[in-house]
Amino acid sequence: MAPTIHPFDSVKDYEIRLASKLVKDAYPASANVNFVQIDKVDPPKQDMKKFLAIEKAGGALPTISRVLYAYYYTNTFTFNKALVNVTSGHIITKEQLENGVQGPLLPDDVGRWEEICIAHPLIKAEIEKLKLPPGYVVRTDPWIYATDDPNERRGLVQFYMYLCASNGHAESNHYSLPLKFSPVFETRSAEFVRMDYLPGGFDETVTPTLPWQQVPCVEYHPELNGETVMRDPKPLLISQPEGPSFTVEGSKVKWLGWEFRVATTAREGFAVYDVWFKGRQVFYRISLSEMTVPYGDPRAPYHRKQAFDLGDCGFGTNGNKLGLGCDCLGTIHYLDGMSVHSNGEPYVIPNTVCMHEQDNGILYKHVNYRTDVAVVARKREFVVQTIATVANYEYIINLKFCNDGLIDIETRATGILSTMPIDENVTVPWGTIVGPNVMAAYHQHILSFRIDPAIDGHKNSVVYDDVEMLPKSKLNPYGIGFVTKRNFVERSGYIDQAPFANRTYKIINENKINPISKSPVGFKVMMPARQMILADKDSFNVKRAAFATQQVWVTKYRDHQLFAAGEFTNQSQKDTGLGVWADGKDEVRNEDIVVWATLGFTHIPRVEDFPVMPVETHNIHLQPANFFDKNPALDYPQSNQSFNKSVLYNGQAEEKACCKTNL
Amino acid sequence: MAPTIHPFDSVKDYEIRLASKLVKDAYPASANVNFVQIDKVDPPKQDMKKFLAIEKAGGALPTISRVLYAYYYTNTFTFNKALVNVTSGHIITKEQLENGVQGPLLPDDVGRWEEICIAHPLIKAEIEKLKLPPGYVVRTDPWIYATDDPNERRGLVQFYMYLCASNGHAESNHYSLPLKFSPVFETRSAEFVRMDYLPGGFDETVTPTLPWQQVPCVEYHPELNGETVMRDPKPLLISQPEGPSFTVEGSKVKWLGWEFRVATTAREGFAVYDVWFKGRQVFYRISLSEMTVPYGDPRAPYHRKQAFDLGDCGFGTNGNKLGLGCDCLGTIHYLDGMSVHSNGEPYVIPNTVCMHEQDNGILYKHVNYRTDVAVVARKREFVVQTIATVANYEYIINLKFCNDGLIDIETRATGILSTMPIDENVTVPWGTIVGPNVMAAYHQHILSFRIDPAIDGHKNSVVYDDVEMLPKSKLNPYGIGFVTKRNFVERSGYIDQAPFANRTYKIINENKINPISKSPVGFKVMMPARQMILADKDSFNVKRAAFATQQVWVTKYRDHQLFAAGEFTNQSQKDTGLGVWADGKDEVRNEDIVVWATLGFTHIPRVEDFPVMPVETHNIHLQPANFFDKNPALDYPQSNQSFNKSVLYNGQAEEKACCKTNL
Repeated sequence: MAPTIHPFDSVKDYEIRLASKLVKDAYPASANVNFVQIDKVDPPKQDMKKFLAIEKAGGALPTISRVLYAYYYTNTFTFNKALVNVTSGHIITKEQLENGVQGPLLPDDVGRWEEICIAHPLIKAEIEKLKLPPGYVVRTDPWIYATDDPNERRGLVQFYMYLCASNGHAESNHYSLPLKFSPVFETRSAEFVRMDYLPGGFDETVTPTLPWQQVPCVEYHPELNGETVMRDPKPLLISQPEGPSFTVEGSKVKWLGWEFRVATTAREGFAVYDVWFKGRQVFYRISLSEMTVPYGDPRAPYHRKQAFDLGDCGFGTNGNKLGLGCDCLGTIHYLDGMSVHSNGEPYVIPNTVCMHEQDNGILYKHVNYRTDVAVVARKREFVVQTIATVANYEYIINLKFCNDGLIDIETRATGILSTMPIDENVTVPWGTIVGPNVMAAYHQHILSFRIDPAIDGHKNSVVYDDVEMLPKSKLNPYGIGFVTKRNFVERSGYIDQAPFANRTYKIINENKINPISKSPVGFKVMMPARQMILADKDSFNVKRAAFATQQVWVTKYRDHQLFAAGEFTNQSQKDTGLGVWADGKDEVRNEDIVVWATLGFTHIPRVEDFPVMPVETHNIHLQPANFFDKNPALDYPQSNQSFNKSVLYNGQAEEKACCKTNL
Repeated sequence: MAPTIHPFDSVKDYEIRLASKLVKDAYPASANVNFVQIDKVDPPKQDMKKFLAIEKAGGALPTISRVLYAYYYTNTFTFNKALVNVTSGHIITKEQLENGVQGPLLPDDVGRWEEICIAHPLIKAEIEKLKLPPGYVVRTDPWIYATDDPNERRGLVQFYMYLCASNGHAESNHYSLPLKFSPVFETRSAEFVRMDYLPGGFDETVTPTLPWQQVPCVEYHPELNGETVMRDPKPLLISQPEGPSFTVEGSKVKWLGWEFRVATTAREGFAVYDVWFKGRQVFYRISLSEMTVPYGDPRAPYHRKQAFDLGDCGFGTNGNKLGLGCDCLGTIHYLDGMSVHSNGEPYVIPNTVCMHEQDNGILYKHVNYRTDVAVVARKREFVVQTIATVANYEYIINLKFCNDGLIDIETRATGILSTMPIDENVTVPWGTIVGPNVMAAYHQHILSFRIDPAIDGHKNSVVYDDVEMLPKSKLNPYGIGFVTKRNFVERSGYIDQAPFANRTYKIINENKINPISKSPVGFKVMMPARQMILADKDSFNVKRAAFATQQVWVTKYRDHQLFAAGEFTNQSQKDTGLGVWADGKDEVRNEDIVVWATLGFTHIPRVEDFPVMPVETHNIHLQPANFFDKNPALDYPQSNQSFNKSVLYNGQAEEKACCKTNL
């Protein structure tokens, strides 16, 4: 018998095995079933609401079937999706997807394609023309093809070619030495389609492949980067001698008033479910939903550089194996992720999510100046972290739960810039030269976070509050008054940004009035105003990523509407997500709703971002706003030296007393 | 003989004693000299440039006279300023300031005024009318009077009155129980001027004082706040068994490639001087320059609530005595501040600045997906922190120097909301009800940070780069291209915000070209787009705080131009700072310039902000941008478990290997 599984638990290896077996058995061997993704489907919310209510109350839990989806190819080119009930062991549906729909890339395939590309006679012939000096080998990054033609054939992948210096040292930074030819393959058949040549000057002109002009490689790896005099930081150790403040049992986390579940997923990395703080329900599900990365270099084939890192590749599928003492400090709990080989056999991505607690400075302080008595509490955070490597880039996603009820959704972009060749003494207005003959084009990272709220229940509304000056009047004779103006979102759609109006988005529950403020309880969605997608409204970049055009979206909840740009993004022609769902038809006031927060950053590379990029950090905050009847952290202990055990720098002789307090 | 002092060192007690003695000796005893502030004047930059060059080169240092300023009253009402050379021991100038100019408040005075107010027969009579039940006492917060009348007399202070519950427990939160009368005193003579009455309804109507309607007090102090079931965080200890990575000698700090000086000041809290990173000069001086806090309740006397927390009160003068293990964790170095009594006698504010290093997650990471080899370095920060208590509010200023060359200027607002009485069942559009019969008016915190750059030298320029879509063309047939457009600031003035253009402000040195990017070296000034001051352009709120109308200002450097709203803000009628200096007359391109970054936040109080407010955190980043020729943190060691010594959560049996690496 299988161990007990919670409906929100991540997929298990035996579930994947069963699903892939059932699917394979449904086809003749000659169909040659090739999987690209298998994962769990979220249970219907209607069922889960009942389940969770019984779970809270402590009754006998109903059985909720575990359902998996499988994406797979048959007969080389046919893309299919099956839904499999692995509780009862049967296929619910299987369908051949309409022509034009592609599945995400499978990491196994990407590795294999590199070999196929480099071994191809036409590529070998092109490499020959480079007349490479000894010590250089050619490497390629298969890149998502994207779209510039509604009639383009499917299965295309663009291969960007690079040189690997340092006698082929495996960790040499090939992104420093981009080459000027780029083959396209149809990957399911491994068929060479076309050779693209890359411009090196200030316009779109290309040239045939010439002998390579030797330039130094800008290396990042410590064995290669040439740094000989290292800085000397002293260890900074974080210890929890009495153990951490959290407990984890399966997917269930409890930490200082917070309760929620964390499950790894193939596409999102992880999702958190059923989030409660201090005994009150706040969110049903939070996750990263999609990210698109369009590039601003207009020249072919770069004009097609628009990755969808979740839909095209998968954050979980490409999740890092996190290292103890490398990726976070302190007392760490890890969760494993799960992926599949093309034969449907699952494999574990160990430690792909880490969880720990950390200090973040002062949470609140007040000193009574009459008595010099201070009250001070520190901000403690529980971090759920995952890191995905999507070819050159790394994305670090942190969900931080804070002891004052705030959730900080943090994105850190790092890794290596996607680079292009550039000739000596050329500059271009859409990119930064980051090394000898290497340019990093301007680009954008536009992420959509899906926030499924349950602010004291599932019937929620979205409002936005602007702050406006009061006109002069008898009441306001000096013209200094200002007030808030509340606007309700009545229908599915988006809300403009308005930072100069201090526009603040809130998810509220109109059925629950805060007894103190006499206004509905709610949570703020705090996000910086940002430039959205920079492309013509008729471009594929925009058509494929409606979510990237606006910063805050509201839709009515529907099962399986999880991904902002739609379920299938690889070579997609149009957005089948928010672009369809947020059509102004659904009523979203006092309904079960979903909020989609688009966080964008236009990345104008700095030289300092190469050869490996210091993090660019961006945050969205979900903050209780008139949800509690006072500061919810008053039950958090005061900060004091007997607890914190700080020490004085050795230049200082005597220890001074802690904050004057008679606690 | 006095110990050796660096010209950037903070003022010494004996210097204050000498200055105050010289000033007092210059007047007859009958003049009754009363000091309100004495501090050091920065040396002329011209002299310091020479001094610092010699200091770097190791030559014989010239003597730079230490000069102090003293603000003081004579003959009760006359406000004066003296400049005193304490190296040679003589008064340089002393002047009676023009009528209307007021000095900042002296903490000693504020304490004394409370006693005078409460003891006044007219106040006692008013209190009598409240018919207070036993266990309540009256307390008052003297509030800066500000301005609504160009002919108003000077020396006025508004006394906001409150009740202290809990049998007069000294830590009872009087801000929870505001009263409806508010006397005005002329404070130098202690003369009662007027009784203001405060509205309690939805408009400006006021009523005579009636018996007090008893309501519960919302307490914050742990002895009073009624929290009985405390959350149970486990200790999270930060230790540096090999000692910290920093050294401090006097004002000089060295930390992992950074070198700078830190000095406490009466007005700003602290300033950092002469900042170098990896052997290159980057900033001459950075400090908070001013903060104004206008309130949006239009009704008298609230329409005058506009504090200038630096100019009116002083961040250093009101600096906290920081507690080991309370206000920061780890290995801490403290600096003392200095203030004065009205007789000119100095006193130490111990531990008013703390400095320590901390971890801030991952700085960079890349995983080669072919080999699974990870490179990862952690972000380490050196924090210079001060905390000022300005009556009800606390402000935490952190300057964080990061191991990648970034400086993070962080402001955390906490403390207690300034509150107003409100009648039961009344709501107002300019405030939030935060407790029984207590309202917190909407307000803004608008801070000016003064950034005096020295990006590879003193001749710098300011540019702003917008990101714009390329029009469709043969080069850009798909309409997806985008480019940056650079604009130079030629004359002193301000730059509009334009977040949707991704407008990015940079301080560059046009005389120094980055050999890689082929563009001038520089630092970005990264700040969020924010709503600026919300008041009629003809209001005193705006006239007194021109800096609060725009987010980025550039002026030509001039000695002693340090404070954004001008030197004297108490009851000021107009801005004598940026409003005067940034007049478009000075050429500021390739000159010695100063950048003034205005960080604003409109604070719409939440119930959760009471009775003590979880921090609102806001950041400005100064980031190298094409300053270095590659990532400047490649010489920072890799993150690994032998250094970091993390541990697994006890639910996990076996320790897993650290990031796969052969380092």
